[in-house]
Amino acid sequence: MRERVVVLGAGFAGLAVVRGLADEDVDIVLVDANNFHTFQPLLYQVATAGLDADDVSYPVRGIVRRQGNVTTRMARVTTIDLDARTVTLDPPGVDGPIGFDTLVVAAGTVTDDFGVPGVAEHSFGVKRLDDALGLRAHLLDRFERAAADRRLVDDGGIDVVVCGGGSTGVEMAGALRELYSKVLARDFPALPVRTARIVLVEMADRLLGPYTEASAAKALETLRRRNVEVRLGVGIERVEANRVLLTDGTVVHAHTSVWAAGVRAAPVAETLGTPLAKGGRVVVGPDLTIEGHPDVFAIGDIAAVVGRDGEPLPQVAQPAIQGGRHVARQIARRRRGLPRQPFAYRDKGKMATIGRNAAVTELANGMRFSGLLGWLAWLGLHLVYLLGFRNRINVFVNWCWNYVTYDRAARLLRESERT
Amino acid sequence: MRERVVVLGAGFAGLAVVRGLADEDVDIVLVDANNFHTFQPLLYQVATAGLDADDVSYPVRGIVRRQGNVTTRMARVTTIDLDARTVTLDPPGVDGPIGFDTLVVAAGTVTDDFGVPGVAEHSFGVKRLDDALGLRAHLLDRFERAAADRRLVDDGGIDVVVCGGGSTGVEMAGALRELYSKVLARDFPALPVRTARIVLVEMADRLLGPYTEASAAKALETLRRRNVEVRLGVGIERVEANRVLLTDGTVVHAHTSVWAAGVRAAPVAETLGTPLAKGGRVVVGPDLTIEGHPDVFAIGDIAAVVGRDGEPLPQVAQPAIQGGRHVARQIARRRRGLPRQPFAYRDKGKMATIGRNAAVTELANGMRFSGLLGWLAWLGLHLVYLLGFRNRINVFVNWCWNYVTYDRAARLLRESERT
Repeated sequence: MRERVVVLGAGFAGLAVVRGLADEDVDIVLVDANNFHTFQPLLYQVATAGLDADDVSYPVRGIVRRQGNVTTRMARVTTIDLDARTVTLDPPGVDGPIGFDTLVVAAGTVTDDFGVPGVAEHSFGVKRLDDALGLRAHLLDRFERAAADRRLVDDGGIDVVVCGGGSTGVEMAGALRELYSKVLARDFPALPVRTARIVLVEMADRLLGPYTEASAAKALETLRRRNVEVRLGVGIERVEANRVLLTDGTVVHAHTSVWAAGVRAAPVAETLGTPLAKGGRVVVGPDLTIEGHPDVFAIGDIAAVVGRDGEPLPQVAQPAIQGGRHVARQIARRRRGLPRQPFAYRDKGKMATIGRNAAVTELANGMRFSGLLGWLAWLGLHLVYLLGFRNRINVFVNWCWNYVTYDRAARLLRESERT
Repeated sequence: MRERVVVLGAGFAGLAVVRGLADEDVDIVLVDANNFHTFQPLLYQVATAGLDADDVSYPVRGIVRRQGNVTTRMARVTTIDLDARTVTLDPPGVDGPIGFDTLVVAAGTVTDDFGVPGVAEHSFGVKRLDDALGLRAHLLDRFERAAADRRLVDDGGIDVVVCGGGSTGVEMAGALRELYSKVLARDFPALPVRTARIVLVEMADRLLGPYTEASAAKALETLRRRNVEVRLGVGIERVEANRVLLTDGTVVHAHTSVWAAGVRAAPVAETLGTPLAKGGRVVVGPDLTIEGHPDVFAIGDIAAVVGRDGEPLPQVAQPAIQGGRHVARQIARRRRGLPRQPFAYRDKGKMATIGRNAAVTELANGMRFSGLLGWLAWLGLHLVYLLGFRNRINVFVNWCWNYVTYDRAARLLRESERT
């Protein structure tokens, strides 16, 4: 019987493993809770109606259909038994738990509300396609209702609080302001859209923690110039349906809030029964395996891979992709009797966009650029990493369209999504 | 005060009125239950994952944003008072009912189950975007579940019954078979997808009622050759979650059913209190007004406009578009003191596609073609009538992609859509 490699998660990390094993004589079982891969870096553009669902997602079965050694299962992982070497799924399937020779845990992260009351009920996350589409529908619904009844405006009906000033929060706040000033202001000429509040709240005393001070200052300046209220050094006390209470006692009346304040490892990490680091991330060694389990890898956002500076690698695409490729290589090497190699992460830099013509980019070689140049770099890179030719074309067409016309074609509010 | 024209419905008919009044000094209030226009002729392609939501819909506010004399309201119409000249909406808005000088009723149709038990609960309609996306999600969910548990296949888990052999049913059945044989068969190599049943049930003894016998025979032959089971001369007795009972006693085990058997006028037609024709359609005179109400027009699918043959015009796009243009012209003429003109429908013909390389086209001049030529004509015409440059480009890219790769990018099953 051929060696079975079970890969949990069809994100950047899991797919890199699967693709890296394309020519190996192994049986791969790829498990994901969804039937599609989500291009998370662009989800905020779905939430702000610049792209639609199919632009940022790709059917998992379509990705692996030409790779004869892969079976796909759309299921949640309920438990992992490292000793018995089995994974239990829901729905379970007729054959019961799936046995594995090699396991790759790449299940990513989920939104963490850090125990702040009301977040789970009233805030929109930033991790899942459903989060983004739900936020889009909710925002459009608020605007339509305010168009019917102006009194909603005074209650914060069209105001938004974005919680968290990391790159996701910054990108979301910038994209929201752009949607408001370029699109909704013209869609709803009778509403005071340009003066509607978009409030970005960050507990630290600066934005974009992992970036340089200069980039953070640039982002702050751009956001403020574009009329995003940035509140630094203050946390979220409680979220309610129509308002957000800050830790300094401020009450922001806003019918919409976005929770971009943090994530934790997917719950499956806990079922491993192995040591977890901060944020519930799975502790792995230099070769990305779990200690004492040389055939169990953890990669991507769910793993705490220690970088050269002694800190865990950031939870972004590059460590996931590189980690996945590394694991595929190690599995192939072992099958050829070659010794295992340690994982060496190659930092390429980071970038965050703040809306039209503005982004901050920091390359690993120390080069930094912002404004239009940073923005164009951001566009190009995201097109390149987008999965599939069709998605690239569609996203490119949509971006050109959005840029030239100041329109957003995907501002759809489905009946079933009304709140 | 300027004359107020209230237009109910942002379909082909309503939009044609609004656009036709672009240069008139009137106040137009455009009301629709959704914030988007739906390109209904392509909904079946959304249901079969060839296109995504934003390809076949267009934000209403985006359509009218450059037209200064239009106000948009996303709302349902609850009552129309022809004597008081008011329309009541839900949500109502602060100013109460909307008064009108001229009313254009263009609210279209809704699915009619003709009292067949179980249709409302278990069948997917073919009229709304939510219908199409719901059907897509349900189908994909059935396949994913069958992949986990093959026993579902024997229970009809991946089989489909399409009720109704008009053009919508024929197009749906053809597109489903294409999705099955070209896409899902490769996505699910372990399932017997090519032999899965797609059953098209039509009560009449032939398909495509309004078409010629030759076209109907061509469609029947093509569908049967492509392995669609066509059952003629039999009706639907009852629909259950996992099976469909036919009037001849046959039980078809199928977890999915599509109701393309008929529509009736939108409920708002009844609140008019004026005579209704078959299917609840509003009876109008030769000038498209309701008798006794010279300022109240009904157009599109909701109106029973009598054609030259004494029969009501078909409920398709052309009569709606032409009717809308006619009404706009009449409103403009009256404002200039010119007499009203009767509506003269110009039949351009009809076309239905049966999937890849196959369609039947009947032009009004008697020309008929089918097969590849009919299919190309169908593609071109639908691209031309699709609203907006971006949608045309995206649909064109997707069609090319689908045709060349045998892939369907939009086969997404959102968590919130699982059944």
